[in-house]
Amino acid sequence: MRAVSQYQDIISNHFEALALKNEPKNLYEPIRYILSLGGKRLRPVLTLMAAEVFEADCRLALPAATAVEVFHNFSLIHDDIMDDAPLRRGKETVHEKWDVNTGILSGDAMLILAYRYFESYEPETFQKLARLFSKTALEVCEGQQYDVDFETRDDVTIPEYLKMIEFKTAVLVGAAMKMGAIVAETSEENASAIYDFGLNLGIAFQLQDDFLDAFGNPETFGKQVGGDIIENKKTYLYLKAMEFAQPEEKEQLLHLFSIQPHDNTDKINSVKRIFTQTGAAEATQSAIQEYTLKAFQTLDTMNISEAKKIILRAFGDKLMSRNV
Amino acid sequence: MRAVSQYQDIISNHFEALALKNEPKNLYEPIRYILSLGGKRLRPVLTLMAAEVFEADCRLALPAATAVEVFHNFSLIHDDIMDDAPLRRGKETVHEKWDVNTGILSGDAMLILAYRYFESYEPETFQKLARLFSKTALEVCEGQQYDVDFETRDDVTIPEYLKMIEFKTAVLVGAAMKMGAIVAETSEENASAIYDFGLNLGIAFQLQDDFLDAFGNPETFGKQVGGDIIENKKTYLYLKAMEFAQPEEKEQLLHLFSIQPHDNTDKINSVKRIFTQTGAAEATQSAIQEYTLKAFQTLDTMNISEAKKIILRAFGDKLMSRNV
Repeated sequence: MRAVSQYQDIISNHFEALALKNEPKNLYEPIRYILSLGGKRLRPVLTLMAAEVFEADCRLALPAATAVEVFHNFSLIHDDIMDDAPLRRGKETVHEKWDVNTGILSGDAMLILAYRYFESYEPETFQKLARLFSKTALEVCEGQQYDVDFETRDDVTIPEYLKMIEFKTAVLVGAAMKMGAIVAETSEENASAIYDFGLNLGIAFQLQDDFLDAFGNPETFGKQVGGDIIENKKTYLYLKAMEFAQPEEKEQLLHLFSIQPHDNTDKINSVKRIFTQTGAAEATQSAIQEYTLKAFQTLDTMNISEAKKIILRAFGDKLMSRNV
Repeated sequence: MRAVSQYQDIISNHFEALALKNEPKNLYEPIRYILSLGGKRLRPVLTLMAAEVFEADCRLALPAATAVEVFHNFSLIHDDIMDDAPLRRGKETVHEKWDVNTGILSGDAMLILAYRYFESYEPETFQKLARLFSKTALEVCEGQQYDVDFETRDDVTIPEYLKMIEFKTAVLVGAAMKMGAIVAETSEENASAIYDFGLNLGIAFQLQDDFLDAFGNPETFGKQVGGDIIENKKTYLYLKAMEFAQPEEKEQLLHLFSIQPHDNTDKINSVKRIFTQTGAAEATQSAIQEYTLKAFQTLDTMNISEAKKIILRAFGDKLMSRNV
């Protein structure tokens, strides 16, 4: 098995050499642009890693890994349009650099392109990959729709929220790993177990993202700390706080989540105080632990060497300490 | 072989009974809505017809036909956003009835759903269908991009225009028919010939659409006659007129295509006069004949009974006389 950074190198070299058509320029330039912005390439890395966990040459999994990353970037382009986001990875979003129509059409082309990367596999493998991919991609759309719906709802429950992040984020992590398993032609049981490993780790990761958005270290978090609070986002922290809050705290939190002050410092501090006081911060950390543990427990059901299990566990630990 | 109206009945019954998820409502309602607007269902009809031409039960081709129609409706939703169109088949467009974000996301889900309808086929057939579908879908995106690009270009050539309508419209007609051939497991030669039949008929159909937009009978054309002229669209008629025009006519046409009068009656009549005077109208009719003939010539290369060839030819004639 290789180190995560080695998989990252393989992926980034692969994307640098990726052959894309040139014409029509206005369709393929934005695709080249978003793919060049890089990022950690975590999902395709997981596909390669999973292939090696199940004893295949990780390079066999490169087309599937490419599909996963191209799909992920498609979803970023369309989500950024829907969120009217100006920046992505510190650079202009596609619809800002070009326009909304270009973002829609280039995104569409990327979704189709993603499927094309599976074409190099034999029919049986192709069908398994494409089937898993379609199921996952549709869930990602459903998750995005739930996220949009939640913005205007004030009765979102914790199970609904968990389902939303599962669909919007975690299923692609699970699918990325399962694709490596499919390419490696391991057993159904192993493939299903690595999916659950990725899924639960994905949920834990997203909950940690919610937590760090409020309580993270501004120097290392990478995004603006307090961003979710500024945008009045109903994260796990917020929903738990509303569940645990005394009437007075609840009223205060509702008020804080209804205002958009020019300077957000006081708002952020007050909300964080409520998150802590109510026990929501602690409950979120427990949930992160719980899903991480659930991920690790799936390792016990896998028919792989102890050494491989230790590697997967170490990766999970590294991911949850955000050192990847 | 059945009559076209019988295939249409099979398709419309199938779409009425089509099982779609209910939740999230804001994702699936728009899908149900656009699919309920109907239309002639020409593309899926062609898939069923092609399957029967090659001796298969047309019902075997229903999943592939469904994929084609769902994809076509996906492209309508996204194109309508890009064109800011208020109406589709006389009803509100999805982004008007809901909003742009809903149109983007529901469209994305439909593109993915389209692939899922292939899943009922065996791996070999699945891969052939999905491969053809991806290639075609990407070409449709490219065609749409060329169409957008042409709006702001004044040096579009006839070959470029033909490539645009081939990609934007005709490849899906060819692919719809080839999918029927793939499901019927006919020879590569037959599958390729029926693709060319559909492709050339699709080009002829689109050129006829350009022609009828200016010279059609307002009572039977279905769309506003002169719509392309009002929108200053650079159709085949326009490009041919510019090619054939004397300097004075050219100047006049350029002027007419730069204005947007409140009452378009004079503009439409003047442009039509130039289309006729320059010989552009006649050249367009010749091109329609040429592509229709090209379609019919592919029939000679097909290894099917004379009776089947007569049926396909009759369908082509019916389509080009717009009685379907």
